[in-house]
Amino acid sequence: MDIQIILGSKSDMPVAEKAEKILKKFTVAYDISVASAHRTPEVVKKLVEENDADVFIGVAGLAAALPGSIAAHTIKPVIGVPVSGKINLDSILSIIQMPPGVPVAAVGLDRGDNAALLALEILALQDDTIKKELVEYRKEMKKKAVAKQ
Amino acid sequence: MDIQIILGSKSDMPVAEKAEKILKKFTVAYDISVASAHRTPEVVKKLVEENDADVFIGVAGLAAALPGSIAAHTIKPVIGVPVSGKINLDSILSIIQMPPGVPVAAVGLDRGDNAALLALEILALQDDTIKKELVEYRKEMKKKAVAKQ
Amino acid sequence: MDIQIILGSKSDMPVAEKAEKILKKFTVAYDISVASAHRTPEVVKKLVEENDADVFIGVAGLAAALPGSIAAHTIKPVIGVPVSGKINLDSILSIIQMPPGVPVAAVGLDRGDNAALLALEILALQDDTIKKELVEYRKEMKKKAVAKQ
Amino acid sequence: MDIQIILGSKSDMPVAEKAEKILKKFTVAYDISVASAHRTPEVVKKLVEENDADVFIGVAGLAAALPGSIAAHTIKPVIGVPVSGKINLDSILSIIQMPPGVPVAAVGLDRGDNAALLALEILALQDDTIKKELVEYRKEMKKKAVAKQ
Amino acid sequence: MDIQIILGSKSDMPVAEKAEKILKKFTVAYDISVASAHRTPEVVKKLVEENDADVFIGVAGLAAALPGSIAAHTIKPVIGVPVSGKINLDSILSIIQMPPGVPVAAVGLDRGDNAALLALEILALQDDTIKKELVEYRKEMKKKAVAKQ
Amino acid sequence: MDIQIILGSKSDMPVAEKAEKILKKFTVAYDISVASAHRTPEVVKKLVEENDADVFIGVAGLAAALPGSIAAHTIKPVIGVPVSGKINLDSILSIIQMPPGVPVAAVGLDRGDNAALLALEILALQDDTIKKELVEYRKEMKKKAVAKQ
Amino acid sequence: MDIQIILGSKSDMPVAEKAEKILKKFTVAYDISVASAHRTPEVVKKLVEENDADVFIGVAGLAAALPGSIAAHTIKPVIGVPVSGKINLDSILSIIQMPPGVPVAAVGLDRGDNAALLALEILALQDDTIKKELVEYRKEMKKKAVAKQ
Amino acid sequence: MDIQIILGSKSDMPVAEKAEKILKKFTVAYDISVASAHRTPEVVKKLVEENDADVFIGVAGLAAALPGSIAAHTIKPVIGVPVSGKINLDSILSIIQMPPGVPVAAVGLDRGDNAALLALEILALQDDTIKKELVEYRKEMKKKAVAKQ
Repeated sequence: MDIQIILGSKSDMPVAEKAEKILKKFTVAYDISVASAHRTPEVVKKLVEENDADVFIGVAGLAAALPGSIAAHTIKPVIGVPVSGKINLDSILSIIQMPPGVPVAAVGLDRGDNAALLALEILALQDDTIKKELVEYRKEMKKKAVAKQ
Repeated sequence: MDIQIILGSKSDMPVAEKAEKILKKFTVAYDISVASAHRTPEVVKKLVEENDADVFIGVAGLAAALPGSIAAHTIKPVIGVPVSGKINLDSILSIIQMPPGVPVAAVGLDRGDNAALLALEILALQDDTIKKELVEYRKEMKKKAVAKQ
Repeated sequence: MDIQIILGSKSDMPVAEKAEKILKKFTVAYDISVASAHRTPEVVKKLVEENDADVFIGVAGLAAALPGSIAAHTIKPVIGVPVSGKINLDSILSIIQMPPGVPVAAVGLDRGDNAALLALEILALQDDTIKKELVEYRKEMKKKAVAKQ
Repeated sequence: MDIQIILGSKSDMPVAEKAEKILKKFTVAYDISVASAHRTPEVVKKLVEENDADVFIGVAGLAAALPGSIAAHTIKPVIGVPVSGKINLDSILSIIQMPPGVPVAAVGLDRGDNAALLALEILALQDDTIKKELVEYRKEMKKKAVAKQ
Repeated sequence: MDIQIILGSKSDMPVAEKAEKILKKFTVAYDISVASAHRTPEVVKKLVEENDADVFIGVAGLAAALPGSIAAHTIKPVIGVPVSGKINLDSILSIIQMPPGVPVAAVGLDRGDNAALLALEILALQDDTIKKELVEYRKEMKKKAVAKQ
Repeated sequence: MDIQIILGSKSDMPVAEKAEKILKKFTVAYDISVASAHRTPEVVKKLVEENDADVFIGVAGLAAALPGSIAAHTIKPVIGVPVSGKINLDSILSIIQMPPGVPVAAVGLDRGDNAALLALEILALQDDTIKKELVEYRKEMKKKAVAKQ
Repeated sequence: MDIQIILGSKSDMPVAEKAEKILKKFTVAYDISVASAHRTPEVVKKLVEENDADVFIGVAGLAAALPGSIAAHTIKPVIGVPVSGKINLDSILSIIQMPPGVPVAAVGLDRGDNAALLALEILALQDDTIKKELVEYRKEMKKKAVAKQ
Repeated sequence: MDIQIILGSKSDMPVAEKAEKILKKFTVAYDISVASAHRTPEVVKKLVEENDADVFIGVAGLAAALPGSIAAHTIKPVIGVPVSGKINLDSILSIIQMPPGVPVAAVGLDRGDNAALLALEILALQDDTIKKELVEYRKEMKKKAVAKQ
């Protein structure tokens, strides 16, 4: 598998679906699981340590400890997606403000799509098929943007 | 032991010392250790699971995952102390905004002293010595406050 | 009685109901009353001083002075629940930023459920029935979380 | 006496001194006392209820409950001065976001001077000496402002 | 007249109506007008200078300059009510953070009711009828609050 | 004259000096005066109405009403510079969040330099000398930026 | 052409329409195009460099880089309009906090109307028709404001 | 070359040095250049397009458009480091809140060290030497963290 997506709660699924909508267009294998840094930390640990994914994506709201928790168990790149709620700065700051030594790559609020694209950019460094698909995706994006005008 | 204090980083010691300054005045056993939710999660887990403390205090700054990480491994009461930095809302929101099911008792920014007093209030429910000392402490506090005037 | 819940206003009831939903599953006695730190301070004082509850939960929004007001009248542990509104940081900061000497245990925005669980964790230190129920509750929580996957 | 100033903590004195610097220039009687809404609530209550002051000024930082606590015990006008610290929004929101029914007149962060002037404006409605002094004070203020240019 | 209420925009009327609902219960004369610090500054100036009201209430949202603008033209007490919108901190900070020398008494977001009560508290210092009505209002408020329980 | 700079307080001078440092390099006439929207509103009014400047720059901190106050008296372009303090969001939001109908052009916190450059860009539309100087300034800026590397 | 409006995304159109509603009342030529600083930077560059507009208006939400990106390619005045979303401070701060040397004139959240008026104020410096229309527009605005009362 | 670090301003060098301190310990080639999204956009473009680096790191403060500007010109992974200043939320939100389609991997405020580690984690997916060094680095980090206790 290439990309492992983990949701802190099943209620974060709409954000994961934004990622999935992107990933389905690419030649890439991925899995979506639910595991909580607070409710099932041992499941998070196992899911990360017994996993051959190249990139992890953690999706979580509130005191969003999940992406940092994934990063604590691997040296693979970990992308964190803050999920919106009543405050928003809570999930953003909980994900972006990691201490030195254990990095997380934070993307924007509810930006499951950008998390998927960032994961693909990372995989594309060693996978020419994905690279070509990304180049094509950008071209299409530009075309649509111009067409809109 | 009664109270286990855990710091996310040695740099959080000044906040722990505020707790220690309070605890030294009471008939209570405590320990201060350093363990990071992100750098040494297995040390946090072990420190919590192999511990007979009644109350845990987690002290951390930035994306302060430590108190929530302690709470994930125990049903003992866990107190979280956010440590100040360049943003402050990061550690406060990372500690207070816990998801449902795994509570953390958050105290104010850098309030190691109040974390100690809260732990003592919890212990006092089953310990008459601490209860008397707390009653006395409050009296002294009131006296000083009045004397100040 | 074990737990006294106090609401700053009757409009805070939905948050108290989250607490009640948890407490009903446990062998614990509780009461829910309404008393305002600003409108009926003497009722708050009386409710706290003439009360044999081991733990107090104060639920309030806006300039949420209630939990701190309860804490001013007792050395029992006091849990504060900030209620959401147009700003949210107002109730969070009013509850968490207590001055030294008078601690309040703040839980997350609208987190009546976690306030209840935190109170139960405190009571469990001296009550084996609640302790067993808490252990069971966590197991169930983990099972549900895994089942969700 | 005309104006009763109450500080939540002796450390708030520099802000009270800004008020005093103004009040000394006017024909007005005032007193400055220290009493904490959290540490000595009964002193606050007594200080307010057994007081013939026309206006109260409460000066406090952090979860600044003092002005609201004063207002809970009187129908006299209460002015609240938030004191600066590491967050600032905590004392501002704790003072300004009072619930309906118990008003507090909030002035700016550390604005002891404006609290004094607001109190004087209130007293001037029934005191021609103060009124004349206020008119004069404004004139001087304008002169200095113009002279600065 | 006793109280002059000024709205920055007609859209602020719902907040003024909260004030009116209170004022109608008291023996007090008031007027509600619309005048903008930015669109019709000369109307604000005239409305303030040619006015025998004892207290002014300015209601405004966004960069809420109106209360400060009223205060610039009078030494009568001026109460400012921030109106809610997409940001909320904009109107709160624009009203509360007045520079030294020109005080405004800020009340909470959309708190037209508290602005009215604060104005009445000020008038009550020299008006025994209003004072009695305020005492009665508080009693009723307490009764309702207790009845709610 | 081309540009009229107005400071809300003499303490804002360091920010005005950043503007002056830029303006001195250009063929442009400017004046710096002090006038407060709150302390000397009539001076602001006169300074704006009896002025042939093409562009106004208002520099102010706290509840920074000055730029909006200038804009209320003219249809000339008004640039607002928020001055830093203990909160910063106060002056930024007070300047940028103008109501519909009376625009202010807000630049960044303490950015007297950019206010000057923006004023020059406006003047350059009808003044070829300034236009040439601006083109040259940008070239120099780019050179320095590249040289730095 | 006089004014070039650029939207970062077609979804920003409602804010541009507020500008258009104003511009249609004036004798002025304008164009609205869509071009993204992130998706089609070369389109932004071309649209700015091959354009005889006197004033540019950039409308964008989130990490709103568009106005700054326009300003990087021209010495013409650039107005930035932050578009509202889940955070609001993101687009405001991304637009207003430009570094020294490349100014952007920020207007309020979703204030397409004020962006248009600011552009017209700039054009009016060299165009007497627009100047007269602006004077008339203000008069009407004042009339309506007074009529409302 | 493996990693291209770009600073928006020479004043961001201390943050880049935190990255360099990490990178020097690894078998990796990197370069540090200065180029501004606002002052020298064409230099940014050229530096990105004529570059064989696998990963880009953009370091910038204020309205930190640089990382997003780099990402607009490449499908390689781009890491953004917000630099601290008077507001901090400005650079954080300007970097993390990228629109859909053009991802940036945001790390914490001033976290040049974590940007370097994240870049190394990405490179390690295809480079066994870096992978071994990362595994070793984590071991050392854990040892030091434990030694501290």
